[in-house]
Amino acid sequence: MLIVQKYGGTSVGDLERIENVARRVARTKDEGNDLIVVVSAMSGETNKLIEYAHHFSKNPSPREMDLLLSAGERVTSALLAIALKEMGYDAIALTGRQAGIVTDDVHTSARIENIHTETMQNHVGAGRIVVVAGFQGITDKGDVSTLGRGGSDLSAVAIAGAMDADLCEIYTDVDGVYTTDPRIERRAQKIDRISYDEMLEFASMGAKVLQNRSVELAKKLNVNLVTRSSFNDNEGTLITKEENIMEQPIVSGVALDKNQARITLRNIKDEPGIAAKIFSKLADENINVDMIIQNVGQDGTANIGFTVPENELEHAKRVVEEVDDTAVIEYESNIAKVSLVGVGMKSHSGVAGTAFSALAKENINIEMISTSEIKISMIVSEKYGELAVRILHEAYGLDNRS
Amino acid sequence: MLIVQKYGGTSVGDLERIENVARRVARTKDEGNDLIVVVSAMSGETNKLIEYAHHFSKNPSPREMDLLLSAGERVTSALLAIALKEMGYDAIALTGRQAGIVTDDVHTSARIENIHTETMQNHVGAGRIVVVAGFQGITDKGDVSTLGRGGSDLSAVAIAGAMDADLCEIYTDVDGVYTTDPRIERRAQKIDRISYDEMLEFASMGAKVLQNRSVELAKKLNVNLVTRSSFNDNEGTLITKEENIMEQPIVSGVALDKNQARITLRNIKDEPGIAAKIFSKLADENINVDMIIQNVGQDGTANIGFTVPENELEHAKRVVEEVDDTAVIEYESNIAKVSLVGVGMKSHSGVAGTAFSALAKENINIEMISTSEIKISMIVSEKYGELAVRILHEAYGLDNRS
Repeated sequence: MLIVQKYGGTSVGDLERIENVARRVARTKDEGNDLIVVVSAMSGETNKLIEYAHHFSKNPSPREMDLLLSAGERVTSALLAIALKEMGYDAIALTGRQAGIVTDDVHTSARIENIHTETMQNHVGAGRIVVVAGFQGITDKGDVSTLGRGGSDLSAVAIAGAMDADLCEIYTDVDGVYTTDPRIERRAQKIDRISYDEMLEFASMGAKVLQNRSVELAKKLNVNLVTRSSFNDNEGTLITKEENIMEQPIVSGVALDKNQARITLRNIKDEPGIAAKIFSKLADENINVDMIIQNVGQDGTANIGFTVPENELEHAKRVVEEVDDTAVIEYESNIAKVSLVGVGMKSHSGVAGTAFSALAKENINIEMISTSEIKISMIVSEKYGELAVRILHEAYGLDNRS
Repeated sequence: MLIVQKYGGTSVGDLERIENVARRVARTKDEGNDLIVVVSAMSGETNKLIEYAHHFSKNPSPREMDLLLSAGERVTSALLAIALKEMGYDAIALTGRQAGIVTDDVHTSARIENIHTETMQNHVGAGRIVVVAGFQGITDKGDVSTLGRGGSDLSAVAIAGAMDADLCEIYTDVDGVYTTDPRIERRAQKIDRISYDEMLEFASMGAKVLQNRSVELAKKLNVNLVTRSSFNDNEGTLITKEENIMEQPIVSGVALDKNQARITLRNIKDEPGIAAKIFSKLADENINVDMIIQNVGQDGTANIGFTVPENELEHAKRVVEEVDDTAVIEYESNIAKVSLVGVGMKSHSGVAGTAFSALAKENINIEMISTSEIKISMIVSEKYGELAVRILHEAYGLDNRS
């Protein structure tokens, strides 16, 4: 098998941890696999460099920021290759440029455009362990570029795709994806397999294991992605295409997002396109509107309710008041969004009913509902958020999946 | 004028010092000069990275060491460019590769083979301040290489040569080259101008302002080199070709080297080529033999005396005893070498006489003498070393040159 392994900042946080990573890499090699390892900067290094830059400028030049920030991953890749060679393994460290990673020139958040795989292919072909500095590439002008937060994951997924790897393992400090946050429901189970689309819904709901950009890229390139911990030997969660998952549970997991706020507009102007005007203005201002509910109010005027991230509420308020200064506007930030995710919903009807009756039984009022093909989201009062998660976790049998 | 400025590790030792450097660079630009700035890593950074590598391996792979060690200069170059841009100057940071510095592939002590100046030329032509990460280049295979200790000086001199710069200023924490060590003779004077050859003699005698490699390269490329302090505005010392120095003093300076040891062999084998055998064996073992005196002893046997660096004495002992186990061998490490350097010696006779009589007057015995066209070195007892320096400094009128 050709495996791409990616180790994040905490996994290579100090010299002992890099040694641990070297041992894990060596073991994977000993098992007969070909191996490309993508590494992040040692944790804290990138933030230190950002602080340095901000000492000189509030808006440091992006091109120079990239040159600066790329240093950390280079250090880790060199150190890991040195450690592996000392253990008797043939290893070589490659920078983003040397690994053939070409990006556009949007410095500090560049997109990978192409990977010239010849160098990696030659080294892998020669039996060498290839260690690649993550998070970075090179523009066609020859400038160093970086991929933004979570960039090393993107490096790993893109390399796995370009090299047609069998597996892309993302190592962090958590075991994988859980049916819900184990801090809320201690009976939460690790999920063995989950589809890209489900993972995307989880990530957008705040499950911080993987960023959506990486999952989207994995989906696009059809990369089998595994998220697992570098601190133990537990098997992680495989994120793969739907067809690879034999038994589709109706609901895969329950997520909670308490950082939502709701804006309700009553008696808004009786004017065609006023709603469109509000939402396009919010979009212009980069405010993320999540759930929207619209219905007809008294006297033919409309009512609109929608949610935004709590920290964008003030900004959203200003925008809304500008567009319509006659509407009655209400704000509510003590709300929580509870979401059920599962590809099994596609082929099952009545999934929502279970949720509604389980919550009703405990007298939890559902204030807003929105559904997609694989997700049902409900807004409840913030104080009932955790309780709702536990009720739904049990209602869909997630406590005893395995 | 096109000026290349190089700032060493202590000059960019922290963020405040980098800011100072930015102000000095800005001032040079404001004076109407074109400018290329070569920077070292922040002091301590390179040693930290070396320690990291040695955590994993006593003999880390040189190729990976270069990738590792090149990180520090990249950070400084990016930060300085960011600082300059914030001050309103057009600046760009370039890595060794981007600056077009091509080296051989002797990793960790590579030699510059070629500099492709187009990129630098374009940026300088556009009025931009070019900030180059020192100490590093790229091999023709595309691997990162470093130039060894003092490598940033080499980068600066090589760039000055390739760009045909008017001046190459090397900034450190000392004011320049002095007629002797001011800690020994407080009346020591800073030298305004000195020839490459004199500087080479000074450097090999332990004046640590510049490494010989840099001075040799400056001589070869005919680069006007200035060494000065980044912590004040004093003019430094110009190191240039002999013709550029109007008034040639007979003696430019006096140097002291207390880290010498002498080996004396008496009654060595009466065998042709035995001396050659000893010295070629010492050379094979990389022992630096400095002064050699040979004369005929009793019974037609020869006596040979020579000096080696004190820390190579043990090694030299073993070598000598292996080659000739019948000779009487004496060791002496309580010696000091006092040297007079001056291109003026070439055209003046009787220079040595002044030294001999000045030392004799104070009853300092000269144990060995060696002379070259521009240098006279004398071995005296270690306890008289400083005194001899002060006597000679006065005897040649160095106290009141200016």
